[in-house]
Amino acid sequence: MREPPVREPPGAPSEPRQPGPTEPLLIEHGTVVTDAGSLPADVLVRDGRVVALLAPGTSGSVREGLGADDGLRRIDATGKLVIPGGVDAHTHLEMPLGALRSSDTFETGTTAAAWGGTTTVVDFAVQPRGDSPLVGLAEWQARAAEHAAVDYGFHMILSDVSDRALADLEQLVGEGVTSIKVFMAYPGRLYADDGQILAAMQAAARTGMVCMVHAENGIAIDLLVAQAIERGETAPPAHATTRPPALEGEAVHRAIALARIAGCPLYLVHLSTREAVSQVRRARHAGQPVVGETCPQYLFLDQSLLAGPDGRDFVCSPPLRTERHRRALWRGLARRDLSVVATDHCPFCRADRALVGATDFSRIPNGLPGLEYRLNLLYQGVVRGTITLERWVELVSSAPARLCGLWPRKGSLLPGADADIVVYDPARTTVLGARSHHMAVDSSPYEGMVLEGGVDTVLSRGVPLVSGDRFVGRAGHGRFLVRDPVDLAHWRR
Amino acid sequence: MREPPVREPPGAPSEPRQPGPTEPLLIEHGTVVTDAGSLPADVLVRDGRVVALLAPGTSGSVREGLGADDGLRRIDATGKLVIPGGVDAHTHLEMPLGALRSSDTFETGTTAAAWGGTTTVVDFAVQPRGDSPLVGLAEWQARAAEHAAVDYGFHMILSDVSDRALADLEQLVGEGVTSIKVFMAYPGRLYADDGQILAAMQAAARTGMVCMVHAENGIAIDLLVAQAIERGETAPPAHATTRPPALEGEAVHRAIALARIAGCPLYLVHLSTREAVSQVRRARHAGQPVVGETCPQYLFLDQSLLAGPDGRDFVCSPPLRTERHRRALWRGLARRDLSVVATDHCPFCRADRALVGATDFSRIPNGLPGLEYRLNLLYQGVVRGTITLERWVELVSSAPARLCGLWPRKGSLLPGADADIVVYDPARTTVLGARSHHMAVDSSPYEGMVLEGGVDTVLSRGVPLVSGDRFVGRAGHGRFLVRDPVDLAHWRR
Amino acid sequence: MREPPVREPPGAPSEPRQPGPTEPLLIEHGTVVTDAGSLPADVLVRDGRVVALLAPGTSGSVREGLGADDGLRRIDATGKLVIPGGVDAHTHLEMPLGALRSSDTFETGTTAAAWGGTTTVVDFAVQPRGDSPLVGLAEWQARAAEHAAVDYGFHMILSDVSDRALADLEQLVGEGVTSIKVFMAYPGRLYADDGQILAAMQAAARTGMVCMVHAENGIAIDLLVAQAIERGETAPPAHATTRPPALEGEAVHRAIALARIAGCPLYLVHLSTREAVSQVRRARHAGQPVVGETCPQYLFLDQSLLAGPDGRDFVCSPPLRTERHRRALWRGLARRDLSVVATDHCPFCRADRALVGATDFSRIPNGLPGLEYRLNLLYQGVVRGTITLERWVELVSSAPARLCGLWPRKGSLLPGADADIVVYDPARTTVLGARSHHMAVDSSPYEGMVLEGGVDTVLSRGVPLVSGDRFVGRAGHGRFLVRDPVDLAHWRR
Amino acid sequence: MREPPVREPPGAPSEPRQPGPTEPLLIEHGTVVTDAGSLPADVLVRDGRVVALLAPGTSGSVREGLGADDGLRRIDATGKLVIPGGVDAHTHLEMPLGALRSSDTFETGTTAAAWGGTTTVVDFAVQPRGDSPLVGLAEWQARAAEHAAVDYGFHMILSDVSDRALADLEQLVGEGVTSIKVFMAYPGRLYADDGQILAAMQAAARTGMVCMVHAENGIAIDLLVAQAIERGETAPPAHATTRPPALEGEAVHRAIALARIAGCPLYLVHLSTREAVSQVRRARHAGQPVVGETCPQYLFLDQSLLAGPDGRDFVCSPPLRTERHRRALWRGLARRDLSVVATDHCPFCRADRALVGATDFSRIPNGLPGLEYRLNLLYQGVVRGTITLERWVELVSSAPARLCGLWPRKGSLLPGADADIVVYDPARTTVLGARSHHMAVDSSPYEGMVLEGGVDTVLSRGVPLVSGDRFVGRAGHGRFLVRDPVDLAHWRR
Repeated sequence: MREPPVREPPGAPSEPRQPGPTEPLLIEHGTVVTDAGSLPADVLVRDGRVVALLAPGTSGSVREGLGADDGLRRIDATGKLVIPGGVDAHTHLEMPLGALRSSDTFETGTTAAAWGGTTTVVDFAVQPRGDSPLVGLAEWQARAAEHAAVDYGFHMILSDVSDRALADLEQLVGEGVTSIKVFMAYPGRLYADDGQILAAMQAAARTGMVCMVHAENGIAIDLLVAQAIERGETAPPAHATTRPPALEGEAVHRAIALARIAGCPLYLVHLSTREAVSQVRRARHAGQPVVGETCPQYLFLDQSLLAGPDGRDFVCSPPLRTERHRRALWRGLARRDLSVVATDHCPFCRADRALVGATDFSRIPNGLPGLEYRLNLLYQGVVRGTITLERWVELVSSAPARLCGLWPRKGSLLPGADADIVVYDPARTTVLGARSHHMAVDSSPYEGMVLEGGVDTVLSRGVPLVSGDRFVGRAGHGRFLVRDPVDLAHWRR
Repeated sequence: MREPPVREPPGAPSEPRQPGPTEPLLIEHGTVVTDAGSLPADVLVRDGRVVALLAPGTSGSVREGLGADDGLRRIDATGKLVIPGGVDAHTHLEMPLGALRSSDTFETGTTAAAWGGTTTVVDFAVQPRGDSPLVGLAEWQARAAEHAAVDYGFHMILSDVSDRALADLEQLVGEGVTSIKVFMAYPGRLYADDGQILAAMQAAARTGMVCMVHAENGIAIDLLVAQAIERGETAPPAHATTRPPALEGEAVHRAIALARIAGCPLYLVHLSTREAVSQVRRARHAGQPVVGETCPQYLFLDQSLLAGPDGRDFVCSPPLRTERHRRALWRGLARRDLSVVATDHCPFCRADRALVGATDFSRIPNGLPGLEYRLNLLYQGVVRGTITLERWVELVSSAPARLCGLWPRKGSLLPGADADIVVYDPARTTVLGARSHHMAVDSSPYEGMVLEGGVDTVLSRGVPLVSGDRFVGRAGHGRFLVRDPVDLAHWRR
Repeated sequence: MREPPVREPPGAPSEPRQPGPTEPLLIEHGTVVTDAGSLPADVLVRDGRVVALLAPGTSGSVREGLGADDGLRRIDATGKLVIPGGVDAHTHLEMPLGALRSSDTFETGTTAAAWGGTTTVVDFAVQPRGDSPLVGLAEWQARAAEHAAVDYGFHMILSDVSDRALADLEQLVGEGVTSIKVFMAYPGRLYADDGQILAAMQAAARTGMVCMVHAENGIAIDLLVAQAIERGETAPPAHATTRPPALEGEAVHRAIALARIAGCPLYLVHLSTREAVSQVRRARHAGQPVVGETCPQYLFLDQSLLAGPDGRDFVCSPPLRTERHRRALWRGLARRDLSVVATDHCPFCRADRALVGATDFSRIPNGLPGLEYRLNLLYQGVVRGTITLERWVELVSSAPARLCGLWPRKGSLLPGADADIVVYDPARTTVLGARSHHMAVDSSPYEGMVLEGGVDTVLSRGVPLVSGDRFVGRAGHGRFLVRDPVDLAHWRR
Repeated sequence: MREPPVREPPGAPSEPRQPGPTEPLLIEHGTVVTDAGSLPADVLVRDGRVVALLAPGTSGSVREGLGADDGLRRIDATGKLVIPGGVDAHTHLEMPLGALRSSDTFETGTTAAAWGGTTTVVDFAVQPRGDSPLVGLAEWQARAAEHAAVDYGFHMILSDVSDRALADLEQLVGEGVTSIKVFMAYPGRLYADDGQILAAMQAAARTGMVCMVHAENGIAIDLLVAQAIERGETAPPAHATTRPPALEGEAVHRAIALARIAGCPLYLVHLSTREAVSQVRRARHAGQPVVGETCPQYLFLDQSLLAGPDGRDFVCSPPLRTERHRRALWRGLARRDLSVVATDHCPFCRADRALVGATDFSRIPNGLPGLEYRLNLLYQGVVRGTITLERWVELVSSAPARLCGLWPRKGSLLPGADADIVVYDPARTTVLGARSHHMAVDSSPYEGMVLEGGVDTVLSRGVPLVSGDRFVGRAGHGRFLVRDPVDLAHWRR
């Protein structure tokens, strides 16, 4: 049985859990939706945590019992859904890319997250090449501290897998970073060869970490890219044709094989293809602890967008795909072959994209924004009947919390959980676009898309961040999250 | 989104929900385990229902708030698991079989259920041949009322599928019976042909019912049985050889095809073979609402027992199988291909078995006891690491509650749920055997088996049934359960 | 190792093999295509048999050796393909259907067959209900003798599976009929229940016979048909909607399961669906001796034709399907999941169709013509690159010969084989239509279709049947073929 | 349709086809077995080629016709099988490995091949690193010319994939070398990265070549090997544990993905695992031109032999595996998932193995003998009923001939084929062992194994090589074979 974590969070950025407002808060008359099901219930919050879920009829006596009926804050959630705050397991805020950085800072990015109902982000810190991952962690801690509007944790990108780097994993776990990420793509930059990946997985297995993998065969892709450019195919559509689905499927299969040998839980990021879903399904059926993540862009956007006038704005890796793959991804979400929807949020402004990638698709900075949109976009799956309400909450909140070692503190409304709560209004309409969104990027891949449903109220540890269409949170509210080591019970779901 | 059920339960046997004891009860210091996860929490019960799950540190203030500290009963669950009471979705109490009846009455059977941590049974009422299913329901209501020690609901066996019988399904749903069962086995008795089954499934689909199927090809089996007897193979082992795994796999595939055409949710009872699991898995992967149930006997007992001196005591249909099939069933439970473990509890005493089946295996009454053993047996899967704690609770309680239209009233510990609660002690040892068990049958197929873990305390709607190794409940405590129509959100899990 | 068959053919209709013309014949300069491959070679025929395949350069010396240069007939096959004559494993000539008979007699049907390059037909004799299959055989022998233009054998339809009928199977094998056929469709007429089918398969296994199965779930279909008619859907399109693909897939799966239990080689006739192909593939991968046949109508015609003005002319069972299924069938042919293309030739004239089925689709006589078209239609698969030349010959000639116990006498050009030879001209164009075809039916489901390739010359046992666009054969040339019992070596291909 | 090859073979080593003995030869009274089937037939040979297959009764007249009854040589094959000579598609004769060479020269190796019924070998020439493949071809031509006792062709190992090397492929095809081989194993020696492999496959696709792949993930293996040695596991069993089955399955999947992108026919050498068979099966089912080869050692020998006193004698790569894998390989052969059985013949004498690998398993020269044993070993599959006679001939002769561009010249008995013929005696017994075999190696991995069946007579182009238990051939008889480019018709079988 899982033991509750007893480790103390480390120094300043993760100092002992700050008490929230002490006056109790009751969210009443709503329908509570968690990954366990939906039911009418009231949620009682105190000291920043969920104190109780209450059957509708019983709130009165408890309220009385609290002896403070007048002082009890209340949120009326009639006709609305009360869900645990979103957890985005995959963001790149202020990420350096050559001379550029992704355009959202921890402040702008996490503020936008709050607007969209996401109250936890797990960002990727990066080991500096030739240096210890711990150096990377310190750097990212410094960037986030005092700036984040929601709570945050870190994964660690190993940009340079060496015995020395792996020796520091144990200490990383001690600091609350319980996942590493390696790249099968990007030779010369982040690429690790299969020996390095296997060694990293072995080290992760030893230390109770997850290994995350960017699964595209970068070596083969680089050949196809060079050949395309040699043929004069330099426009954005070649970004998709030089990264064919088979090279994602291949890499996914390889990552699974290496993880099996290492005995390491495997988290495959941003899967985009039918082939990938199929490989993950097979591995899971064989009992291997493997989970797959996909992202809104792969669920909603078509690769033909790369051929449009703003083709550059749709460059991300893996690339956008076709309808056939989107159908497979949605089916994978519905049938539990895929486990998480995260954003891979990594926006770049148009000028930066144009500057670097003016003449050659392969030089366009990779990455799309999504942090603010995720919950709303995925809710459309409920509207269309593709996924259930419960599965929606699981995919955007509970599952990433579980797999990142944050559950039940995040991703649940169980008593004791952080009171990260979203009141979601199915009756709203949300229109996506660069002018209205709060992410620091001047374009939106979903420009003009009209969605059913929208965020009404957002709390983080009981503190309102969004209320009445106003942002009432603040930079610096967010705290560093010490993540638990892997608990395989969550991986079997 | 699921609407809470608003239908009033019908007359006497299901009169408005009886209030439990009014004084509040706190189960504290335990680990609460549900299908959503495990966490340390206290459970507050009042008026027969779960009022709140409380974070360990917060009980005090709420307790004060309840203004009744002195009156508060407490159960100390330190070191123990606090789980929703078991739900057995498949029992045959007092079931007529020719001149015999299965040996457990509603009183003895439900009392034994309580001893074993099962607080809800869903029994099979039987439509009399040529008569309305409503007649069968009335008969079974009469048998259970005033006798049951735990709450109970009914499925309806259609022993004679006719337009007239199907016309009564809507009324059955109104009475809270939301599932029918048809048989591909037992020609001349319960057998329905494929046209009847398809018609029944169509009617079920129309009325919001589930169709349950006993999937064995009875027509082919009868030929094999007649040939075996003609060859002089009359001893119990022929019971297994004349019901080969392929004839279960065949029938499962057929039932799935018919249900697909009818658009009807399908619940396959007592699956025993690798072939069956594989068919269910394929259908579920294709998105069809199909669930599979298996039983403890198929998970723990080998068909070689039929060749032993007490071979007759192991005759059930489908028959016991080999190790290869057991492995597939366990794997199916772990990987969510199978959804429920129920008992198919249908005991017969040795004299009855011998009397009828003295000279011919095909005349031995079919059925094994299991109602009291189920939770403990399945817990061994947790001990061995085959399934997680959460999956255990799901398989024996939450999933059957969901699929039978009883969730969250049963099978959950969410606020508002019936306070059907088991305090389970992992440190206990339970020894199975006919002398110590409470089922009214003079043999046990698990005689002498030693299990880790055991039931400590059992509550039904807040009322103690088992406490301190004593039965403190009473016949007649149990109430008829009006089951909800199918909610497909539960079928997608 | 296979022993050459030593049994003598039975009496008059199958009298000792008649010598063909004694003067030798050389087919030279062509490309010989068999299921083993393609190569330039000359074929030497003498006494009605293939005496030798000769390397192009070597004919001279052998010709000399034969000492009969002057008497040597020659066919110049330059630019043409030389293939073994087609074998149609599935025809219904003069088949009684209520008061009707299918419109082709043995004379007209086999003459049309010859026109289309088919030199062997295996027709279905029918056991009269309540009588012995031997009676049916005698009846069919009488119909064919003196009338057939090409050689013929028989399968035996069991219209009434009883112990008595099965007791006659051994004698049937002795008479050269080594396959039975049972029906899962047509309750009340030809339908056999699963017990009868299993018994028939057991008897077939014992006697070295194949069991052929018409695999559609007729019981369920009859319900759907009755419901459609009750709803007033009486036009031809309902023929397809009341026979959904799932009910073929179901029956195929069931037939495979029963055959596995019986240990009997299974030949599934006229498969029409993706589901069926998939089931056959699985069984074959598991090593079970199962083969699947499909027909030109399922490869070329769409079910939308049923909604056209001549919808009645497209009624056959299973019904025509959609593109999705046709793709699966072609893929199945290319990848060896399906083994044979036969016709299920069973034509009815328009007046007969209209008379019987004027007001109700379910009363339209089922069956389409195809005997004359098969080779040409399938050759289009070669033209399109879907199948290889060798696979074409295998599907229309060698494979049915092997599976019907006629190889290497039929379906091969190995020395000793009957000189049933087609010279096929890839440069021809063939136009299909009722006015030009030689089948005795006044409509063509392929009316106006233009095909690449066409038959140039046809020999049967060295005797020319078609030459220079003239029919030069004669009714009565055809001989009864004593078929060998099952040789599983052919079933593993 | 395939055109007969018209290219002239290159200079001296492949001079115009030498006429064999001109006097005709008749192999009579035997059972001819080819991949098309078995039948009693006589084989007439003249000028080194098969002139005709003759039905038993017709030989007389032909013999007379030849006007040379007295001069006609005859071989009486009564009770014996007459098959096309074996084709070993995978040998390494005189292969340099560091300072060593594999112990069989072209003379000893091909002589042993003839003893075992193999009349064609396709050996691997090696591109010198940094130099042209044409240089490697010239070197190997020189080694074989005047020494080979049977005909031979070459594949080309690319030890260094560069644009320059790939530019020479077209010329290689012109010289009759129509396959390249790349290695996913052996980093630092033969290893090519995925970009190099993809480039090589693209070049192969362009030029009508096959790409052969040694599919083991050498990068990951090298890590496991280094870790094993660091742990002190230096004995031969570690050779198997450091090359786990998953790393073959992984590499096979990767090779298939790369070949799909390149559009290149893929020939996977020496597959040893269930995982590999499964990947090949999936790719073939998807219609991709992929074939798999396995070797006798993987079909007959267990990895536990590595732990024996002569463990070093069983070191080959991939390593020997367990029973589970052997069963999968045999099943793959029977069900056409695997296409070829070749030997990977690469023997080393004990002293050489001991010298180099005395203290460290990873330094033992890899490779086992098998060239002489292959036909006999595989025939045991027929004896046991696992494969048919026809499949045996296909696996050891026809299929490799087809896939290597040598059919119908080799691997067939069709008229015009080279008269490479083996008269095989099912009644013989063959005992394997180093003292009796003719391969130049002082140990046998099959020492003492007793086999049913044995080679009686061996002809190469009509010239007897083995007759009456004597070797009557000669070094230098063998000729270089100009292989055809890929014909995909053969790849679809």
